[in-house]
Amino acid sequence: MKSYIDEKIEAFKKTNKNRARLLINCADQPGIVAAVSQFLYEHNANIIESNQYSTDPHGGEFFIRIEFEMDDLKAQAEKLEADFQRVKEAFNMEATFKYVDQIKKMAIFVSKEPHCLLELLWEWQSGDLMADISLVISNHETSREFVERLGIPYYYIPANKDIRKQVEEKQIQLLQEYEIDVIVLARYMQILTPHFVETFKNKIINIHHSFLPAFIGAKPYERAYHRGVKLIGATSHYVTNDLDEGPIIEQDISRVDHRDNVEAMKKIGQSVERSVLARAIKWHLEDRIIVYGNKTIVF
Amino acid sequence: MKSYIDEKIEAFKKTNKNRARLLINCADQPGIVAAVSQFLYEHNANIIESNQYSTDPHGGEFFIRIEFEMDDLKAQAEKLEADFQRVKEAFNMEATFKYVDQIKKMAIFVSKEPHCLLELLWEWQSGDLMADISLVISNHETSREFVERLGIPYYYIPANKDIRKQVEEKQIQLLQEYEIDVIVLARYMQILTPHFVETFKNKIINIHHSFLPAFIGAKPYERAYHRGVKLIGATSHYVTNDLDEGPIIEQDISRVDHRDNVEAMKKIGQSVERSVLARAIKWHLEDRIIVYGNKTIVF
Amino acid sequence: MKSYIDEKIEAFKKTNKNRARLLINCADQPGIVAAVSQFLYEHNANIIESNQYSTDPHGGEFFIRIEFEMDDLKAQAEKLEADFQRVKEAFNMEATFKYVDQIKKMAIFVSKEPHCLLELLWEWQSGDLMADISLVISNHETSREFVERLGIPYYYIPANKDIRKQVEEKQIQLLQEYEIDVIVLARYMQILTPHFVETFKNKIINIHHSFLPAFIGAKPYERAYHRGVKLIGATSHYVTNDLDEGPIIEQDISRVDHRDNVEAMKKIGQSVERSVLARAIKWHLEDRIIVYGNKTIVF
Amino acid sequence: MKSYIDEKIEAFKKTNKNRARLLINCADQPGIVAAVSQFLYEHNANIIESNQYSTDPHGGEFFIRIEFEMDDLKAQAEKLEADFQRVKEAFNMEATFKYVDQIKKMAIFVSKEPHCLLELLWEWQSGDLMADISLVISNHETSREFVERLGIPYYYIPANKDIRKQVEEKQIQLLQEYEIDVIVLARYMQILTPHFVETFKNKIINIHHSFLPAFIGAKPYERAYHRGVKLIGATSHYVTNDLDEGPIIEQDISRVDHRDNVEAMKKIGQSVERSVLARAIKWHLEDRIIVYGNKTIVF
Repeated sequence: MKSYIDEKIEAFKKTNKNRARLLINCADQPGIVAAVSQFLYEHNANIIESNQYSTDPHGGEFFIRIEFEMDDLKAQAEKLEADFQRVKEAFNMEATFKYVDQIKKMAIFVSKEPHCLLELLWEWQSGDLMADISLVISNHETSREFVERLGIPYYYIPANKDIRKQVEEKQIQLLQEYEIDVIVLARYMQILTPHFVETFKNKIINIHHSFLPAFIGAKPYERAYHRGVKLIGATSHYVTNDLDEGPIIEQDISRVDHRDNVEAMKKIGQSVERSVLARAIKWHLEDRIIVYGNKTIVF
Repeated sequence: MKSYIDEKIEAFKKTNKNRARLLINCADQPGIVAAVSQFLYEHNANIIESNQYSTDPHGGEFFIRIEFEMDDLKAQAEKLEADFQRVKEAFNMEATFKYVDQIKKMAIFVSKEPHCLLELLWEWQSGDLMADISLVISNHETSREFVERLGIPYYYIPANKDIRKQVEEKQIQLLQEYEIDVIVLARYMQILTPHFVETFKNKIINIHHSFLPAFIGAKPYERAYHRGVKLIGATSHYVTNDLDEGPIIEQDISRVDHRDNVEAMKKIGQSVERSVLARAIKWHLEDRIIVYGNKTIVF
Repeated sequence: MKSYIDEKIEAFKKTNKNRARLLINCADQPGIVAAVSQFLYEHNANIIESNQYSTDPHGGEFFIRIEFEMDDLKAQAEKLEADFQRVKEAFNMEATFKYVDQIKKMAIFVSKEPHCLLELLWEWQSGDLMADISLVISNHETSREFVERLGIPYYYIPANKDIRKQVEEKQIQLLQEYEIDVIVLARYMQILTPHFVETFKNKIINIHHSFLPAFIGAKPYERAYHRGVKLIGATSHYVTNDLDEGPIIEQDISRVDHRDNVEAMKKIGQSVERSVLARAIKWHLEDRIIVYGNKTIVF
Repeated sequence: MKSYIDEKIEAFKKTNKNRARLLINCADQPGIVAAVSQFLYEHNANIIESNQYSTDPHGGEFFIRIEFEMDDLKAQAEKLEADFQRVKEAFNMEATFKYVDQIKKMAIFVSKEPHCLLELLWEWQSGDLMADISLVISNHETSREFVERLGIPYYYIPANKDIRKQVEEKQIQLLQEYEIDVIVLARYMQILTPHFVETFKNKIINIHHSFLPAFIGAKPYERAYHRGVKLIGATSHYVTNDLDEGPIIEQDISRVDHRDNVEAMKKIGQSVERSVLARAIKWHLEDRIIVYGNKTIVF
């Protein structure tokens, strides 16, 4: 199985070996786009896609994401980045080059309910989730079979709030060993410590089973049922130390009515959770998301 | 203008003079549907539409809404209701007959923003909102022109929290004078007292500009913007004494993204508010909503 | 794997051993609901859910679906059906009793693209698609691994229009051997002969990758792209001898824009196809669909 | 009434007096963005929003829309456009400058059904449709009252296919007299001649009451009903000489089910038509739409 995916990944890397993304933010000021596009033009880079946004054209914060192609990119990258220092300093930018063929290494955390994990594995198998799913960590054995069958290592680490520190030590050790770039909490029902969150800042993506800020915390479907809502939803967000308060990446909803009990809402909701999480992760993998304050800009 | 609407209303009354709705709830138990349908059959009533729901088929609460036609209904109604007493008592039912040609008398309350009021007037003019809009009450003069032009009385009653009692006295007097059946708060930005709410129990329909229970209370769009949500919504509900906590009738949402500031969210939201409120009111006018605890059953 | 699903199926059968559905259609006339509900009441059946529809209350066709429970249903079923003959004849009904614990036997046909098959297997594993997936038939070997891994027999039958007759003979033999109740064409790209369609009338469910009647026939995404549509869709329908003209069960759409090329549309469309087909099949398995002329009534 | 709108328009013009849009298309080639953004920077223009698209980064067609602000724009515009000639020629561009305070003059054509017209008037009154609605032309008297009450001239020009030529002569005369920039067919049920269409190329926006290309031509709701679709829709497009085949600007759909007859579908559909047409017109007024072949790019 793994070899089948590996082939897809290799093909993707080959296709995209000359493709990169440049992500910039800085204070809005005249001449940014001119300077950056002139720079890329002079370096023979061909702009494929470009998106920009300013919180306020008169003195706000400016963001731009440019996807470009450049012959022989691998050999040129070092010089390109060095040359860009000049532009960066002129406008006091934060700027990052991302190389599309550097596939991100992903860890998935899951507890008992496997639907989000299964969706991600499904998308991954079909080549729509371009990541290296390096390992799955769970506090349950439930999903071992699905995961190992695909050739992905599965680590069972029992967890509860009394042993949080030891559990996270083991997890962090594994994540560092595998050089993980992004952690997906695919319905992982344990709270993470500030230390863990800080270690992987803006790299942990969670799915919460409500349209936040409604029903923060535990048992959102039960509470939605008792409130008698006509819509249930799901929210994918970066994890911060405030429970379910991190920057929202994507949300969606589905209709319910008086006939739907808690069980029915969970079933309906699972379908929303699956698609919301998958979209959020794809955008992250494509470097489309910029976190600014407690919000996201999704290009 | 009024005469044009009056014609539509008269035509509707004539078409529906033999049509009624029977709304029942009682403890779920064997034989209810058999007894009710046998009763209607014996009285030569023709069932047009029937919807039922039980909170739990084993000992829950049972609800049914039957729309039926019957020749010469006006002459038969009294006997029909009297005869039904027997069935009602046998099953210990709450049961109400509603006659479709008894058009409900509606009062609309509005403050400054006219979009919901305008939507209702629009639907009313096109014959899609079958009510007698008897009067509009506002704490602003803004909408007088639109309303009076359609031949509807407009009452300007300045309001603020210090004079709430006097204001509501005047309002209640008007509502009783016009024999109002249903009150629509079409973005009326004043809080009602428990006395007012109790006087018109399950007869006051509000539109709140968020997908409740998110952003209860003031300035939901501002708060939605600051939270960085990707969906904004609106909720129509019956008013109770707990602010924005009454039984939800209908909700809907619209997508927003990082480019939408508070102003843009308001514009997008207005469109959702308009349609959510209009749907809720139509269902109320068609006797499709049963309030049960703090929830609604919408047939 | 199979044993895991088998357990779910056994649990479902046990839970539903006393549950049945009664599906009726006949000319609309007074007294139908009274007679049927009286009959069920006298036989100690407890109505769980009931839906009815008439094409025209004044002389149209009447449809009702009643889901009910009855103690010791297995022992009572024969007598129940025999007794019902009287009601059936009185109203000249077509009527069928369906027993919920008689899980339907399903065959899935697939060609190269596995996304719809995978979705169905996914839903099946999670217990949301209550069918016995007895076999998969394909004109390609692509999906063998996924299918056999779950313990489902996989039959590779090469097909093209020149050998259609022989291919269908083999298929029909297998379908009869496995006593198949419902055939799902999960992106099976071969046209079926009138003989095949007739043999399994109203038992073949197809997914077409457009919002019919737009883009009937081959290459709908290519044609959607060239037409410059802003929505793409999918349609699930029963198969008749008119290509893509059978009774529609379910449709849905997704937004696209000028940036989406044919490949992107296919990806977006796959997600719609998956969910539309899964919903249609669930409704079929729950006996919620009545075919009437070239339309469906979905209760 | 007119004076109230006029005030809104004046305020809008004042706010936007220094704002313009530059729309460009040309063969994709290196250096376009650099040249254009450098040009704007040198002319002290501040980019507010920028969107670009290429049909193919390797030799396709390139499109960009830049919204910018510039001090004292009115005085500078002539020089700006003259200076831009150099860039334009260097890249063999089609390029247009649009000045935001030059409000477009709009004519609305309507037949009997007023719902789309009413929606546009509603949006216009609330300041969301920034156009000068100069006149309404109709082949019926139905909407005269609504329109004249708002101070808009209403021209009743009876029409049928036998007198098409004379009718269009009168219409064209009026449109030229009022110097009309954009013509909206808000459910105008007459076919236009090639001469008329050619005279106002890419300036006539129609709303068709189906999700094209399904149900081209007459009576789409009737045909949707008979086909038994589960979705109905609406499409707004530029008018060309091929009936309902012009470049699609926007589409949307709404769910229907077996209970909805043709009348119900029309009601549901009207709501979709209203919002689809309003969105298409807003994008046109904001110069967001580029017609390319038989498609639109909507920035």
